[in-house]
Amino acid sequence: MKELLLRNVRPFGGALTDILIRDGRIARIGKAEASTAEVEDGGGAIAIPGLVEAHAHLDKSLWGMGWHVHQAGPALEDKISTERRLRRELNIDPARQSARQVALAASHGTTAIRSHVDVDTDQKLWCFDGVAATRERFRDVMDIEIVAFPQSGLMIRPGTLELMDEALANGADVVGGLDPCGIDRDPKGQLDAIFGLAQKHGKPVDIHLHEADDLGAFSMEMIIERTRALGMQGKVTVSHAFCLGMTDRARAAALTEHLAHQDIAIATTAPASRPVPLAAELRRAGVRLCAGSDGIRDTWGPYGNLDMLERALFIGLRNNFRNDADVEYALHICTQGGADVMEIADYGLREGAFADIVLLDAETVPEAVAARPKRKLVLKRGKPVARDGQALFTVE
Amino acid sequence: MKELLLRNVRPFGGALTDILIRDGRIARIGKAEASTAEVEDGGGAIAIPGLVEAHAHLDKSLWGMGWHVHQAGPALEDKISTERRLRRELNIDPARQSARQVALAASHGTTAIRSHVDVDTDQKLWCFDGVAATRERFRDVMDIEIVAFPQSGLMIRPGTLELMDEALANGADVVGGLDPCGIDRDPKGQLDAIFGLAQKHGKPVDIHLHEADDLGAFSMEMIIERTRALGMQGKVTVSHAFCLGMTDRARAAALTEHLAHQDIAIATTAPASRPVPLAAELRRAGVRLCAGSDGIRDTWGPYGNLDMLERALFIGLRNNFRNDADVEYALHICTQGGADVMEIADYGLREGAFADIVLLDAETVPEAVAARPKRKLVLKRGKPVARDGQALFTVE
Ligand SMILES: [Zn+2]
Ligand SMILES: [Zn+2]
Repeated sequence: MKELLLRNVRPFGGALTDILIRDGRIARIGKAEASTAEVEDGGGAIAIPGLVEAHAHLDKSLWGMGWHVHQAGPALEDKISTERRLRRELNIDPARQSARQVALAASHGTTAIRSHVDVDTDQKLWCFDGVAATRERFRDVMDIEIVAFPQSGLMIRPGTLELMDEALANGADVVGGLDPCGIDRDPKGQLDAIFGLAQKHGKPVDIHLHEADDLGAFSMEMIIERTRALGMQGKVTVSHAFCLGMTDRARAAALTEHLAHQDIAIATTAPASRPVPLAAELRRAGVRLCAGSDGIRDTWGPYGNLDMLERALFIGLRNNFRNDADVEYALHICTQGGADVMEIADYGLREGAFADIVLLDAETVPEAVAARPKRKLVLKRGKPVARDGQALFTVE
Repeated sequence: MKELLLRNVRPFGGALTDILIRDGRIARIGKAEASTAEVEDGGGAIAIPGLVEAHAHLDKSLWGMGWHVHQAGPALEDKISTERRLRRELNIDPARQSARQVALAASHGTTAIRSHVDVDTDQKLWCFDGVAATRERFRDVMDIEIVAFPQSGLMIRPGTLELMDEALANGADVVGGLDPCGIDRDPKGQLDAIFGLAQKHGKPVDIHLHEADDLGAFSMEMIIERTRALGMQGKVTVSHAFCLGMTDRARAAALTEHLAHQDIAIATTAPASRPVPLAAELRRAGVRLCAGSDGIRDTWGPYGNLDMLERALFIGLRNNFRNDADVEYALHICTQGGADVMEIADYGLREGAFADIVLLDAETVPEAVAARPKRKLVLKRGKPVARDGQALFTVE
C-alpha cells in the first residue's frame, strides 16, 4: 500500500489542507496526522485536478523537429493536402510525435487527452498504430482516447470507411467525422456512415464541424437528428462548431436548445479569429463544453503548446470573462468539462477519485489562469510525472 | 568610451554575427576582431530591437498588491466609476504601480512605453505626477511617453480640460481622448478641445475609440477631418478603433483609405472578444499599426502581463496569421510599429541606432512569437536591464 501525503495545498485556491493519496487515489482531504506516508510539501500551492486536453492531434505536430517554414494555402483543403504531402517528406512519425506531445502535455499538467488521429487511404492505419503505441507506452502517465478521424474525407475517399472500421476494431475509442458538406459533399452519406460505425462498435462520436453560418447549422441539425433517433444522448461531441457563432443569434439559440436536449457536447479551442460558440450561452442552456489545443506547431500553423491553463486564458479572453466566477468556469471547461466528455471515471479533487492533481503557485484560480505559472507538481494517479514545468520522464 | 560586444547573435533569426555597442549605440554589426570590449556571448540567440509597448496604463494595475476579486459591471461606464472608487479604497498608488510595471515590462524585453494616464477632477494630477516621477526615476531603463488621458470624460466633467492643459504644460507628451460620443455625448466639443490642446502645446494626439460600427465610424470621420484641417498628418493615433472591425467592409475600407491619407496610426491590443481592425487590411492600405497591453490586472479585468512578445502572438492568433512573413509582421507591429508612433529616434537593429536589444533563444522569429521564450538578455542603450526573464533592478 503506497501512500503519498500532499501537505499544505489549497484545493481550488481554498483553505490550506492536506491530501492523502493511497494506491493512486485520493484517500482523504483534510489536515493529516503524523503519518508514515511519503510527504510532498505544497507550500500553500493551489491544487486542481489534472487538466484535460479534449481535442488534440497527437499524430501531427513538428514539435522537436526544428522549424519548418509554413507552406499551406489558406483554404481547409490546402491544409489537408499539404499535410498529406509533408507527412512523408518531413517524416512526421506519429509514434515519435505523439510521444513528444505526451511529455509536453504532462509538463503542463495535463493528465488526459482525447486525440483525433488521421485515417485515410494514404496513411492507412500508420497514424492510428503510432498513437496507439504511445497510448500503451505511457499508460501510467496519460489517459489517451483515440478518435478515428477521416481527415481527408470519408465519402470522397472510398476505402476510408473500411479503414475506420478496422481502427475501431483495433482499439480506437471514438468515431470521428469532418465537415459533411464542406469536405465530403454528401452530408447524409457521411453522417449515416459515421453513426453506423458508432452503432456497430458501441462507441461515441466526435465530429469536426468548421462549416459556418447556415451551412454549419444544417449539418448540426443532421447530427442532432441522428443523435435523437439513435438514442445517443451524451455520446456525441461537435468540435469547433463555428456555426454557433453565427450572426443570427435566434437561430444559434434554437440550435443550442437542441444540443442541450440531446446532451451533445461542444469542444472548442476558443480561436480569436473566428466566430465561435459563446461559453456563457452554452452554459446557460446546459450544453457541456470542453476544450483543446487542436493541432500544435504543425503543417497547419505555427502556434500551440498543449498548455491547457493557457487554453483557459484563451477561453477567458475570447469570451470576455472578467469576473472571478467566469474565469473559474474557463478552467472548469479545461478540467471537468473534458473529463465529462471523455467519461473519465473517478475524476476530480475528492475522496475516492484518482489522484490526478496539479499544484500551482498562485493566490487564486483566476490568478493562475491569468498568469499561467509553471506547474509546480503534476501527479498522475498519485505518481509525480512533472515538476517545475518539466516532465519527469524523457522521450527521444 | 564604454564598449560591449554581443557575440554570436542572429539579428531577426538570420546569420550568426556580432554586435559591437559603444556609448549606448550600435557601433558595428559584423564578425568582430579581437576586442578589448566587455563580451556577452549570445550563444546563437536571436536579436531583435527592444519591444515597444505602445498602449499601456502605468497608473493603474493591481500588480503586486495581492488578488482582488473583480467588482466592475459590464459597461464601460461601470468600469470607469468602479475604478475611481477603488483607486482610493485600495490605494492604487500611481508612482508605485508604474514603477512595478516598468520592471515587469523590462523583464519581458520592452524598452519603450506609451502610457495613458488618467486626468480627472477627482484624481487631478495625482496619476500624472506619479507616472512622471517613474519616468524620471527609470530614465536609463525605459523610454516613457505620457498621454494625458481624460478617462472619466472631458466635456461631462468641467475642470478636466484645465487639468489636461496643466499636465501638458508640466511634461505630458501626448493629448488623450475617449469616445467623444459614447462617453462625452459631445463629439464636436470634445474633439475641438483635444485638437485645440494639441495645437496649443504642439503635441500629438492619441484617442481611445471603443465606439463600434457606425457610431465609431462617425467619430473617426471627425478625427480624420480635424487631422486634415490642422495638418496633423503623422501625429494622430486612434487606439482600439473597434469600428474598423465593422460588418460593413466597404465602409471600413473607405475609412481605412482616409486613415492612410492622413497617416493616422492605429493602436490595437488584438482582443479576441471584439471585432477589431484587421492587421493585413491596414497594412495593405498603408496604415501604420502599433500594439499594446492596455490595462493589466486592474479593476477592469484580471488579464495582462506587459509581455509584448505574447502580444505579438495575440495579434497572430487574432488575425489568423500562419505564414512566417505574417507572424514576423505581428512582431514588427510590437517593435518598429510602436517606435514609429512614439517617434523614437535612432531605433532598430542597425549601426548608429540606440542599442535597445533583446536576445531570445529560438530558431526563427515566428518560433519566438509562438513559444515566447524567457528573454535571455535585454539591453537598454547597451546596458543590461534584464536577464533570463528577470529585471536586473528592483522595485519595492
Ligand atoms: Zn482538430
Ligand atoms: Zn487603454
